[in-house]
Amino acid sequence: MHIVCLNGPNLNRLGKRQPDIYGRETLADVEKKMADLAGTLGCTVSFFQSNHEGELIDRVHRAAETNSAVIINPGGLTHTSVALRDALAEIADGPGFIEVHISNIHAREPFRHHSYLSPIAVGVIAGVGTQGYLLALRATVDRLQSTGAR
Amino acid sequence: MHIVCLNGPNLNRLGKRQPDIYGRETLADVEKKMADLAGTLGCTVSFFQSNHEGELIDRVHRAAETNSAVIINPGGLTHTSVALRDALAEIADGPGFIEVHISNIHAREPFRHHSYLSPIAVGVIAGVGTQGYLLALRATVDRLQSTGAR
Amino acid sequence: MHIVCLNGPNLNRLGKRQPDIYGRETLADVEKKMADLAGTLGCTVSFFQSNHEGELIDRVHRAAETNSAVIINPGGLTHTSVALRDALAEIADGPGFIEVHISNIHAREPFRHHSYLSPIAVGVIAGVGTQGYLLALRATVDRLQSTGAR
Amino acid sequence: MHIVCLNGPNLNRLGKRQPDIYGRETLADVEKKMADLAGTLGCTVSFFQSNHEGELIDRVHRAAETNSAVIINPGGLTHTSVALRDALAEIADGPGFIEVHISNIHAREPFRHHSYLSPIAVGVIAGVGTQGYLLALRATVDRLQSTGAR
Amino acid sequence: MHIVCLNGPNLNRLGKRQPDIYGRETLADVEKKMADLAGTLGCTVSFFQSNHEGELIDRVHRAAETNSAVIINPGGLTHTSVALRDALAEIADGPGFIEVHISNIHAREPFRHHSYLSPIAVGVIAGVGTQGYLLALRATVDRLQSTGAR
Amino acid sequence: MHIVCLNGPNLNRLGKRQPDIYGRETLADVEKKMADLAGTLGCTVSFFQSNHEGELIDRVHRAAETNSAVIINPGGLTHTSVALRDALAEIADGPGFIEVHISNIHAREPFRHHSYLSPIAVGVIAGVGTQGYLLALRATVDRLQSTGAR
Amino acid sequence: MHIVCLNGPNLNRLGKRQPDIYGRETLADVEKKMADLAGTLGCTVSFFQSNHEGELIDRVHRAAETNSAVIINPGGLTHTSVALRDALAEIADGPGFIEVHISNIHAREPFRHHSYLSPIAVGVIAGVGTQGYLLALRATVDRLQSTGAR
Amino acid sequence: MHIVCLNGPNLNRLGKRQPDIYGRETLADVEKKMADLAGTLGCTVSFFQSNHEGELIDRVHRAAETNSAVIINPGGLTHTSVALRDALAEIADGPGFIEVHISNIHAREPFRHHSYLSPIAVGVIAGVGTQGYLLALRATVDRLQSTGAR
Amino acid sequence: MHIVCLNGPNLNRLGKRQPDIYGRETLADVEKKMADLAGTLGCTVSFFQSNHEGELIDRVHRAAETNSAVIINPGGLTHTSVALRDALAEIADGPGFIEVHISNIHAREPFRHHSYLSPIAVGVIAGVGTQGYLLALRATVDRLQSTGAR
Amino acid sequence: MHIVCLNGPNLNRLGKRQPDIYGRETLADVEKKMADLAGTLGCTVSFFQSNHEGELIDRVHRAAETNSAVIINPGGLTHTSVALRDALAEIADGPGFIEVHISNIHAREPFRHHSYLSPIAVGVIAGVGTQGYLLALRATVDRLQSTGAR
Amino acid sequence: MHIVCLNGPNLNRLGKRQPDIYGRETLADVEKKMADLAGTLGCTVSFFQSNHEGELIDRVHRAAETNSAVIINPGGLTHTSVALRDALAEIADGPGFIEVHISNIHAREPFRHHSYLSPIAVGVIAGVGTQGYLLALRATVDRLQSTGAR
Amino acid sequence: MHIVCLNGPNLNRLGKRQPDIYGRETLADVEKKMADLAGTLGCTVSFFQSNHEGELIDRVHRAAETNSAVIINPGGLTHTSVALRDALAEIADGPGFIEVHISNIHAREPFRHHSYLSPIAVGVIAGVGTQGYLLALRATVDRLQSTGAR
Repeated sequence: MHIVCLNGPNLNRLGKRQPDIYGRETLADVEKKMADLAGTLGCTVSFFQSNHEGELIDRVHRAAETNSAVIINPGGLTHTSVALRDALAEIADGPGFIEVHISNIHAREPFRHHSYLSPIAVGVIAGVGTQGYLLALRATVDRLQSTGAR
Repeated sequence: MHIVCLNGPNLNRLGKRQPDIYGRETLADVEKKMADLAGTLGCTVSFFQSNHEGELIDRVHRAAETNSAVIINPGGLTHTSVALRDALAEIADGPGFIEVHISNIHAREPFRHHSYLSPIAVGVIAGVGTQGYLLALRATVDRLQSTGAR
Repeated sequence: MHIVCLNGPNLNRLGKRQPDIYGRETLADVEKKMADLAGTLGCTVSFFQSNHEGELIDRVHRAAETNSAVIINPGGLTHTSVALRDALAEIADGPGFIEVHISNIHAREPFRHHSYLSPIAVGVIAGVGTQGYLLALRATVDRLQSTGAR
Repeated sequence: MHIVCLNGPNLNRLGKRQPDIYGRETLADVEKKMADLAGTLGCTVSFFQSNHEGELIDRVHRAAETNSAVIINPGGLTHTSVALRDALAEIADGPGFIEVHISNIHAREPFRHHSYLSPIAVGVIAGVGTQGYLLALRATVDRLQSTGAR
Repeated sequence: MHIVCLNGPNLNRLGKRQPDIYGRETLADVEKKMADLAGTLGCTVSFFQSNHEGELIDRVHRAAETNSAVIINPGGLTHTSVALRDALAEIADGPGFIEVHISNIHAREPFRHHSYLSPIAVGVIAGVGTQGYLLALRATVDRLQSTGAR
Repeated sequence: MHIVCLNGPNLNRLGKRQPDIYGRETLADVEKKMADLAGTLGCTVSFFQSNHEGELIDRVHRAAETNSAVIINPGGLTHTSVALRDALAEIADGPGFIEVHISNIHAREPFRHHSYLSPIAVGVIAGVGTQGYLLALRATVDRLQSTGAR
Repeated sequence: MHIVCLNGPNLNRLGKRQPDIYGRETLADVEKKMADLAGTLGCTVSFFQSNHEGELIDRVHRAAETNSAVIINPGGLTHTSVALRDALAEIADGPGFIEVHISNIHAREPFRHHSYLSPIAVGVIAGVGTQGYLLALRATVDRLQSTGAR
Repeated sequence: MHIVCLNGPNLNRLGKRQPDIYGRETLADVEKKMADLAGTLGCTVSFFQSNHEGELIDRVHRAAETNSAVIINPGGLTHTSVALRDALAEIADGPGFIEVHISNIHAREPFRHHSYLSPIAVGVIAGVGTQGYLLALRATVDRLQSTGAR
Repeated sequence: MHIVCLNGPNLNRLGKRQPDIYGRETLADVEKKMADLAGTLGCTVSFFQSNHEGELIDRVHRAAETNSAVIINPGGLTHTSVALRDALAEIADGPGFIEVHISNIHAREPFRHHSYLSPIAVGVIAGVGTQGYLLALRATVDRLQSTGAR
Repeated sequence: MHIVCLNGPNLNRLGKRQPDIYGRETLADVEKKMADLAGTLGCTVSFFQSNHEGELIDRVHRAAETNSAVIINPGGLTHTSVALRDALAEIADGPGFIEVHISNIHAREPFRHHSYLSPIAVGVIAGVGTQGYLLALRATVDRLQSTGAR
Repeated sequence: MHIVCLNGPNLNRLGKRQPDIYGRETLADVEKKMADLAGTLGCTVSFFQSNHEGELIDRVHRAAETNSAVIINPGGLTHTSVALRDALAEIADGPGFIEVHISNIHAREPFRHHSYLSPIAVGVIAGVGTQGYLLALRATVDRLQSTGAR
Repeated sequence: MHIVCLNGPNLNRLGKRQPDIYGRETLADVEKKMADLAGTLGCTVSFFQSNHEGELIDRVHRAAETNSAVIINPGGLTHTSVALRDALAEIADGPGFIEVHISNIHAREPFRHHSYLSPIAVGVIAGVGTQGYLLALRATVDRLQSTGAR
């Protein structure tokens, strides 16, 4: 069981950018925790971050090729990228993906209240900080382990 | 550490009502799993379900009195109840609450895309089935254990 | 063949409240006429009125348990209650329900033009006064008598 | 007591066009049933169908001349024709008209949720199939028999 | 100098339909007054009324062929007919047309506040009763008499 | 002269809930002041608070029975309850009601800017703290004392 | 019979400002023509132009005092001034006013399509150039001469 | 303690203009009553009315200079004047102002439901007739007497 | 293989009306080219143009009877006719239709950006001039030749 | 080369009103700096501030007479005054005007995001404090010096 | 005559991604067919696909340099990319471009109904599958061959 | 003092693309002028242009690392990129950025009237051509030189 964890624009700055909103943990810290939990849960995770929509789409295509479930924090592309949604639609038809937001996007500017990805996601976890990635990992493993999930 | 888990209208029908959307587990099943996990995590949970907005508000007031964190699946009130939001605002000023939805509300009718509660919630977990309650429990315990959370 | 007739908030005041809009018949008068017609049509009807959303939901759940068709005048909840809709969705999956309004809601304030219930109702009858209940009863019996209705 | 029953565009295709939505009865079948019921109720009905807005308006003018109540299924003109509304406004000032829809227009595309005619109709019956015409006939006779209706 | 005066749906009922809004003069009365004034002003007017959008369009095409200015009260088509607008666009490129409304459409229902024709009309006269036709005639003659109008 | 003072959801928490918005006086404090002022003005006031929409509607019905003027702070139901509006419409046809808000709802979230009750209220007093109840009492007594008020 | 003709902001620049839209006649030219026509029609007209909303309101108040009908081209205030509308409401309750626009406001920017004044005007004349003032004068005299106008 | 009472456009016509809406008392009557009540409450009030937005702004600036609380009925400017709001923002930062409307603006045209001033006012009193000014005076004195108001 | 080519209002004026938008070819020219191409492609085409919505609907019904694919340029009805859409829905359930626009409707007025027909069309070709008809013919033949098209 | 610098409502309070937003410089300070810079750049500037829309319009008319470029901070009129826009349209056809805002209007309330003036301005400078006036002066001189500006 | 054919995000997955919507042909298949048809029509086509908005813009710039007409399927960027539109505006000013969609975007989610590119395209072809590319090629060659096209 | 000047998509085509809107100066010309002015003002500027959102974000991150103020013309990304806004939010918390547009975006298509960046920018300069960059440079240096700017 292999899972792909994708992070979109600006998440390479995690820990430095707007720490009052996003906290002080770095992305490396988060990925370390996820890898540890993955070990416990009996799966592996590969990580990829990019500020380029095109690279994220390329990476989603590869996940589709390997039929991997995806955990994605799309950053600002959440609210603007139909192209990324279209790529993920192929995952949605297969193993599915979970959308994670570190902050509670519903408590912020109105343009953050709409996600192009959510309608085709398995689920959405927002506002519980970087722990959201760990919860998404648990939920993904749990789903893949159930027979004939959803 | 004590946590209050509230379920709103129609969740007493869980397992019977629209099982293709909500699954076949009953609310008792879910509460049993939460109580078990609570034992593991070292906290206790009390449960309450009602189809009456007023009773839910009364119960939120009691949680405010005891300064308990709340996990709530508000059912259809999510989208319509300012009164429930106002009650939960008192929790939001204190230990906070997490909003759970069994189904992915963003993949359903447009009126389900807006929640009166989310803007004052700590976070929102939607679409991962009844496991969402367990994740919310983990996130709540984790938050309460951190010092000066959020 | 048993049918449940539900009336929502303020319909206990029928005949007294705003008689220029709703007429001078009382709810008891209407229920009497319905019971008489039910006798003629070879079915029974049970009646319930409440000003409490929660009690109406409870009563819908009982109708779901007994697999009864429903005739409902939801009063002001028509325009505001997702929770009541969610309860009725279980009826909609089964024997179905008809929505009745005594007045022509399309000729009144704009907020009365939208109903949360109509999209999942079998049908809607509005503006023909209290006779609407009798027409709904005829339509319900007719539908239940046809094989594999709708 | 004479009543005019009008059917708008495409209802001449009833029974052939989209039978999963509109059923398999033809318009002639429906008119036969209405004529039979009219006999029982002690009134007569004349029928007219057209795909031409202008012809329907002409026919409404004649009904106004003879002071006849109208039952109308305006088809697609429901949502687009101010001119038909304006013609029917003259009926609304007199014997009144009832609007019938075979399907539940509130369960279909959003543009079918608004009717230019409903705000000046006596009432609206939708979603109960072709039986809606019969219910409209009963409601009309009932209204005309009451003194100083509505 | 020849002018075409067109009247749309329901204006054949002028004087009978909703006299509190439209007055008690008939269309024949109005056309008589216009013909008289035309004599005074040194021009001729031909008149046409129809409840059929298609016939009005046909008549506009003939006016375009003869390069005649148009005075039109489009009735309910004002608010709904792009096809009539498209026909009149050919007049607008040439001798132009004036839009007349007997009633003050801005004081009535919101859907009467928008006209598909006004943006391509020379001008609009509304609310001054049937005298509006006479004013439109004066304005048209005045415009045609000026060199290189507008 | 008897007046009914109603308080909606969460106002039982007055003084404890969000004191920076609502102040530190309890509802009992406010009712005491109102009773005192009522004595001075020569009338009596009865008080009722509930978190249940249905109970508030029931209480409005009783006020209608006794033809009592009403002073109401509807709490969060202000913005969501058509059912409560419908109940109060019966009061509006008779002795009338005044709507009170402790905070200035126009300075808060957009969803608090619209009230379903205001359009049928005699008047609205908002933002002057708990003194708003006393002003409403003065205004009510003054109105009832004038002959043929409003 | 005395009529007041008011012109709002920027109409003192008529003939100089944007002549491709408004033409090259000055306001003095227009007033001269109106005075001449008034002589012919047997009435008098007084003229007032101001760029100040407050002065126009003052002048409307004087017209209300003398019960004079008003012809007004409100310029840019058409689209923005509730205060001017409120002043003219007093005229609307009495002798009435006609709104004139030199250009066809419906063929220009969207914000010019709505007028705060039109809903309470007797009528509106737009797009026929400065002749609109003369037509408004004719319409006003005609209306005042009819008994029990409108 | 000195308070400034401002009245906007058309309030000089109070008692004459639309008395069915605004009553038959004149502004002088109201100011007399306010002065009397001020004497009782131990403060003074100065009065100013203007139909000119600019003069009202000038007067607000003077109130800011003298640090006076303001009671204002802005008339039609309520709904349209950002400039008046901006002037009052300086008062809002200091002694504050209360907005008064004689009629219930929420029961009138939709454009009267929004006020540019309310979001920065201390509070709003609407619909209780000219008594609203007296209530505003009481509320203002009460607020200024409390230490560290609001 | 037989195909029906329909043209709506004003297309009889093709070549004369607004040639800067629609070009100078007549409808007869276009139909000639289509017939020629049909010969090449091995099918026949019948042509029909009308300015009457009702006649177009009648013609669509005949095409439904003969199970013919349709190519339609609905002219101004594109944006306004639900009745025409409803007629074409029967074609959509069978051989399908392609919508053609000579001009690029997306580059024109906003009301031309929405088509009631497009959502049930096979496809839409716009802006490539009268060649669009030829392309639509190629696409239709191609589709009918493929087995189990679309 | 002469330039007119206009300031609208409340800018006479610059330095006193809301200094956290607008800073502590007075308008006299700003005008002094502009005059100094004008000297350096080889032009003259005349200054005018008013809280009266009408006076600003009058002043714009004078600038049009003298064909002077304008720099304007319209204050709250930015968002509400079509009349001021109409006056400035005459400048826009000639030497042009630049719109200045001291604060960043895009970072404030939504109603400040739209300007009636910007669409006809040469350009807009906002958010750089009172230095915006100096930049506007530079830009104006630069534009007037280029041949065939813009 | 050389034409550039561009494909945006996810079209490299053609044939694999959502084949029920997009079919089973690969992009290579389509490009092969286009090259063949180009040979027949006497022109050449170069092809480029990218998931990166920036690369597509770069490629459009090169097409502008060589003054080549463009055929583009922009994928999800259709609905979101102003930057791509801005690049194509340079083509629109010259040889022009045609927008192709394999699926009927008007029959899918509402956000797919708006294209940033269409208003500046020569034309749009949607819903006829991959044949749309071939039709676009024919239309482009036809347009370039006509003298002084469009 | 070092400043970073960023230019977004299509600005590499400055001078060639749509010169009637953007002028004929190249980006190299502009950068030369900025470097010259920077020398005069005693600072340095580094320049970067890209058609790739991701590269611009990368470059903003580097500016954040070096705590440099930014001047940015985001091109079409202005209206669509939340990801770029999120990157710049880190600058906004520090040295700040100014948004520059060569053309007056408020005088162009409606979708250009909204900027995702403006609400967090220090200020915005639009419509004064390429001189806007020089003014932004002056404003930035001025701001950085003031102590505790803004």
